[in-house]
Amino acid sequence: MNYFSSDFRLGILGGGQLGKMLLSDTRKFDIQTLVLDPSAEAPSRFGCSAFYQGSLLEYDTVYKFGKMVHVLTIEIENVNLEALEQLESEGLPVYPSPKTLRLIQNKGKQKDFYVQHHIPTSAHQRFVGLNALRQALANDTLDFPFVWKAATGGYDGNGVKICRSAFDLRELPDVECVAEAMVDFKNELAVIVARSVSGEIRTYPVVEMEFHPEANQVEYVICPARIEADIAQKAQEVALKVSEAFQHVGLLAVEMFQTQDDQILVNEVAPRPHNSGHYSIEASYTSQFENHLRAILNLPLGNTESKVAGIMVNLVGEEGHSGPVVYENIEKIMAIDGVTPHIYGKRETRPFRKMGHVTIVNANMAEARRVAEEVKNSIRVISGQ
Amino acid sequence: MNYFSSDFRLGILGGGQLGKMLLSDTRKFDIQTLVLDPSAEAPSRFGCSAFYQGSLLEYDTVYKFGKMVHVLTIEIENVNLEALEQLESEGLPVYPSPKTLRLIQNKGKQKDFYVQHHIPTSAHQRFVGLNALRQALANDTLDFPFVWKAATGGYDGNGVKICRSAFDLRELPDVECVAEAMVDFKNELAVIVARSVSGEIRTYPVVEMEFHPEANQVEYVICPARIEADIAQKAQEVALKVSEAFQHVGLLAVEMFQTQDDQILVNEVAPRPHNSGHYSIEASYTSQFENHLRAILNLPLGNTESKVAGIMVNLVGEEGHSGPVVYENIEKIMAIDGVTPHIYGKRETRPFRKMGHVTIVNANMAEARRVAEEVKNSIRVISGQ
Repeated sequence: MNYFSSDFRLGILGGGQLGKMLLSDTRKFDIQTLVLDPSAEAPSRFGCSAFYQGSLLEYDTVYKFGKMVHVLTIEIENVNLEALEQLESEGLPVYPSPKTLRLIQNKGKQKDFYVQHHIPTSAHQRFVGLNALRQALANDTLDFPFVWKAATGGYDGNGVKICRSAFDLRELPDVECVAEAMVDFKNELAVIVARSVSGEIRTYPVVEMEFHPEANQVEYVICPARIEADIAQKAQEVALKVSEAFQHVGLLAVEMFQTQDDQILVNEVAPRPHNSGHYSIEASYTSQFENHLRAILNLPLGNTESKVAGIMVNLVGEEGHSGPVVYENIEKIMAIDGVTPHIYGKRETRPFRKMGHVTIVNANMAEARRVAEEVKNSIRVISGQ
Repeated sequence: MNYFSSDFRLGILGGGQLGKMLLSDTRKFDIQTLVLDPSAEAPSRFGCSAFYQGSLLEYDTVYKFGKMVHVLTIEIENVNLEALEQLESEGLPVYPSPKTLRLIQNKGKQKDFYVQHHIPTSAHQRFVGLNALRQALANDTLDFPFVWKAATGGYDGNGVKICRSAFDLRELPDVECVAEAMVDFKNELAVIVARSVSGEIRTYPVVEMEFHPEANQVEYVICPARIEADIAQKAQEVALKVSEAFQHVGLLAVEMFQTQDDQILVNEVAPRPHNSGHYSIEASYTSQFENHLRAILNLPLGNTESKVAGIMVNLVGEEGHSGPVVYENIEKIMAIDGVTPHIYGKRETRPFRKMGHVTIVNANMAEARRVAEEVKNSIRVISGQ
């Protein structure tokens, strides 16, 4: 297949920041792209060959969009799966496969899948609703504490609650859910795996999420993780196994816990480019976005190793600020060597909205970490007039 | 000035591959861009906020385009300078300045400028036309051999001829010209200098053009140049001096000769991102395109040092091939670690047309050089059907 400056068209469902960064590589290779997103202001409305405004959840809209392209991919999971299944059955290559998306969209099914495939993960029980969960507690087949997760619809920490007593159950919605054993972990790690149509597979280095000591929020994604080599190798092996188990095509971000006794337990996966891989644009030989493209087009995968140490800091809207965005002190941080802001292209900021990220690269990890803190303490995403 | 996700608009005259690569960084920063190019098929028609088809040489077109933007830059020198001068006189920041463009567009004036500013360059004489040059030869104020250059309009080796005897004068056009002393050089080098509105200035490392031993064509641009440290330092100092002399804002690519006795002589300059800096996208902490943007917007300049060794191979259309382009063996070279093709987005290939380039990066220069040769010997730009 000739992708380069040809009539070939790649379809991307979703036009957010992940799509925007993916488009940067489709432009580099001059591959035609069509983007579908419900918002006329989507960050990906520039840089594609054609932008279509429409719902990602409507069967007809997604189906018609799919009929215009030669390969279809996603940058957001929440899309109409029936349309993808129909398109796939008609012969359109859809990556990741709708089957995998369906499995991943249900956290209960996802956990069952890990168990079936002997992939290490915390113990779990599935419940059709809150009453069934209460019944299990009453029967002593479930004990506090546990982590409650809504089976579907959760996002960025929504739909998750740590339950230590009956008190914590009061405000939970009555939906299909999973109760997971609490994990006493040393580190939260992630590994991005690229797997191509032909089954070529490569992992990126293990990254580490560093949390704020008090706020319990991820502050930095650090590559490579500051962990022992044997732990890193184990994490990469687990991640490879997950990608192979799904027979996944494209990127799979595998989020994991390193327990106090150095087990690696899979937490959950994202079947696409991921926040934990943004550092790769500056730090890696091949960015996660380029490798996603290579994987779904069955091109050879690029080198996933790093040129230099990389740290990523998210830029989220500050509390108490809503309105036209201003990136306070952005010029100050740009004056520091190895600092690159990525501005996603959302005109309006809102509290905690993902507005961009900053990558810090340096040949020396300790120096990168020092600069990352300087960046974190300098830049603020606020509203101007 | 707030450039990021704001109403600020940058204008770019020219929509070729240099503009296309520049747009990648305006997207990264979410800076609005307007592009003007005569071709409806210009590579930069995607990735800008708005594309305008129109002549770069018509006063009215360029003037009206300039009135729509807050800062104006170029990606090609051959634009209507009267319009730029008018826009500048009305207060629009135009970078590079029309004054510098006027000076550089005339190779005779450019050489005079170097002499006036004590910038080392080969000896030269200016002539209004061919008869004046013949007269100088007759009067023995000019001797063979020399390099004849048309004062204006030359591009990529056009408008240049080595004259060893009267025989070589026969087919020269009767235009304003320069006769330059032949330089016996060891190496052709280039240094890209970034200088911002406020005068902050940084040089990229010295790069070396490696020529094919027989064909006398540049095969590889190699960074860093494989030369002694003191020569590299001298070349960077000369390049800095040239940028300062022009009070240049933006990128200036300074092409130089290293003579047999290790003098550095300036050959010519390009007041914009340049082919000799394409390696920087993958190899440098900050690409030349990002630094051009930072310079003209008076943002702090980014680190110009390299993460790894970089080599660039141009992809030009093969002789005997005209028509829809096919990049033969592109998948083969993409299978090699550290190899990134850049496809400029021209649907039709023609002999010697610049269709793209390939960057090879590696921690080890010798390995990068080996891979570059493998790339050069593999990929071919041909026409399909």
